[in-house]
Amino acid sequence: MDPLSGTVGEWLKGTGPESDIVISTRVRLARNVKGEPFVNRASAAQRAKLERGLREAVEASGVLAKMLYFDMTSASEIDRAFLVERHLISRDLAGGEGPRGVAVNPSENVSIMINEEDHLRIQVIKSGLQTRPTWNRIDRIDDTIEKSVSYAFSPQLGYLTACPTNVGTAMRVSVMMHLPALVITKEIERVFYAVSKINLAVRGLFGEGSQAASDFFQISNQIALGRTEEQILQTIESVIPNVVEYERRSRDALLKESRAKLEDRVWRAYGILKNARMISSEETMEKLSALRLGVNLGLVRDVDIKTVNEFFILTQPAHLQKNAHRILEPKERDAVRADYIRRKLGGG
Amino acid sequence: MDPLSGTVGEWLKGTGPESDIVISTRVRLARNVKGEPFVNRASAAQRAKLERGLREAVEASGVLAKMLYFDMTSASEIDRAFLVERHLISRDLAGGEGPRGVAVNPSENVSIMINEEDHLRIQVIKSGLQTRPTWNRIDRIDDTIEKSVSYAFSPQLGYLTACPTNVGTAMRVSVMMHLPALVITKEIERVFYAVSKINLAVRGLFGEGSQAASDFFQISNQIALGRTEEQILQTIESVIPNVVEYERRSRDALLKESRAKLEDRVWRAYGILKNARMISSEETMEKLSALRLGVNLGLVRDVDIKTVNEFFILTQPAHLQKNAHRILEPKERDAVRADYIRRKLGGG
Repeated sequence: MDPLSGTVGEWLKGTGPESDIVISTRVRLARNVKGEPFVNRASAAQRAKLERGLREAVEASGVLAKMLYFDMTSASEIDRAFLVERHLISRDLAGGEGPRGVAVNPSENVSIMINEEDHLRIQVIKSGLQTRPTWNRIDRIDDTIEKSVSYAFSPQLGYLTACPTNVGTAMRVSVMMHLPALVITKEIERVFYAVSKINLAVRGLFGEGSQAASDFFQISNQIALGRTEEQILQTIESVIPNVVEYERRSRDALLKESRAKLEDRVWRAYGILKNARMISSEETMEKLSALRLGVNLGLVRDVDIKTVNEFFILTQPAHLQKNAHRILEPKERDAVRADYIRRKLGGG
Repeated sequence: MDPLSGTVGEWLKGTGPESDIVISTRVRLARNVKGEPFVNRASAAQRAKLERGLREAVEASGVLAKMLYFDMTSASEIDRAFLVERHLISRDLAGGEGPRGVAVNPSENVSIMINEEDHLRIQVIKSGLQTRPTWNRIDRIDDTIEKSVSYAFSPQLGYLTACPTNVGTAMRVSVMMHLPALVITKEIERVFYAVSKINLAVRGLFGEGSQAASDFFQISNQIALGRTEEQILQTIESVIPNVVEYERRSRDALLKESRAKLEDRVWRAYGILKNARMISSEETMEKLSALRLGVNLGLVRDVDIKTVNEFFILTQPAHLQKNAHRILEPKERDAVRADYIRRKLGGG
């Protein structure tokens, strides 16, 4: 993983529309090779051939300015966890078996998993609320790859995928949002309810199966079948700005009605991050969320949002262990995590 | 109270033997004027006469290098609370009625209450564990005052006092201790038990009737009758060094066995004090206790013990209100307290 050490994905830089509330916009497409069995039905030899062929096709296509390839069969457990933490691969790819890997570009905007659930899982991720630019980018990548790879496609059903819920566009659009004010005011439940009514899903920071950690939520389309890409994009585009507006109004209300309490929460969180000698992953999330809110509201001025965003990735277990060049027990991690954050923040 | 604004008692300077654990040593003597009724039986006219006469006698005696006198009948409620917070008067004197007051020297080592429960309550307080110097000082003051005031004294019973528990020497020796490690390790209960077995009392930071706040405890003799001053002093002198030693061993054990946890506790407390925007009196005590421990163990080096000791007084409600030159509601106090501490510590 050394090519990625010392950097984080460009999508964490904290720019782009609504980036005080929207961390990132991500689109992923699932694709399979025509005439080949799905991954879960392929033999070891078939998987190996698929992996080799697709890796070469992606490289030859030139969709990745410079391609970094990580082979999962030779990667260590920590290296695989490291890629999960960076949102470059899924837990399924990390924990799977057989020939499989991921191609990534150096800025980490694009990742292409090979032999995850589907032969190809293409992902583009951008900072802030950028549904169209993200879609346009992935659409071009998809078209380019299609020039050398024949996709399994049915004129009636659309793209064929291993799991029936993906059949059709095989597209998922996910928007990662930071909604601390809605959590504080307990209005978040109403957002969940409204969003689920129109078949959007709400997940945690680390995608499917992960709990909504702290105040971060991924909103994404649930179903692909029977809808066009345009319809999916429009649904997301019609919902997210409302959630953004809702969160923004909650923040204004908190500033107006309980500013002292809000400032206290923000500064205590900052004080803990700058001074703790041991801090769990869970508490880190909670305190970073408060700090992020404080930075975005202009209450804390000596930390930039990029630093805070990056902490969410850099304080994860595999990142801490890569950084320390050794395996760390959970207790040790809490100490190493606290030291890492404290030093970066110039704490006591 | 303006003569005292901007200063605190010399006894808070954090010097003297065992001052990492013993905040202060205090001795008080109760005295009554021969042939005069006790305060609770005196008429208004008698009280007024006693107050005038004793005030003049104390002033004329020269026991206070420069005498400051605070008349309780003309002092505001906040001014009276201010003197309680500084340990210069008792809650009883503050809340009492009729002619009464207190004479204090500018360094606040000596205070002489007039018409509290007894006609005179003489107090000397010193930093650290100094039973003999404190006793010697108060004994000289007592002798000097006795030259012009005839005390109510029975050769059989000793000094006569309004409350029978004080009859005899009418002396109380109190040692204020900071015992955070014994609280953390829960060994404090054993100290309480051992101390109560030899008829010593354990009280909180603000004396009789106050709860043992946070990790601070006053240990004092319970009974005066039937014992000489020498016996009382010897009891205190035989017990306190053991408690000091016990606390010190607990601190060493914590440093050895759970240093990371201890450091985390200390630095988090410091981080909160430097960053909070609202903090209750109770939380302040708790966090200051942890900080004080950290400073004494050399974990925190950029704060001195005098500053920490003084915070215990300066963050009390009446001090905050005197400093703000206005009445503060409890919620406001929490904000003003946090601001005060944060600024003094150079926080964010």
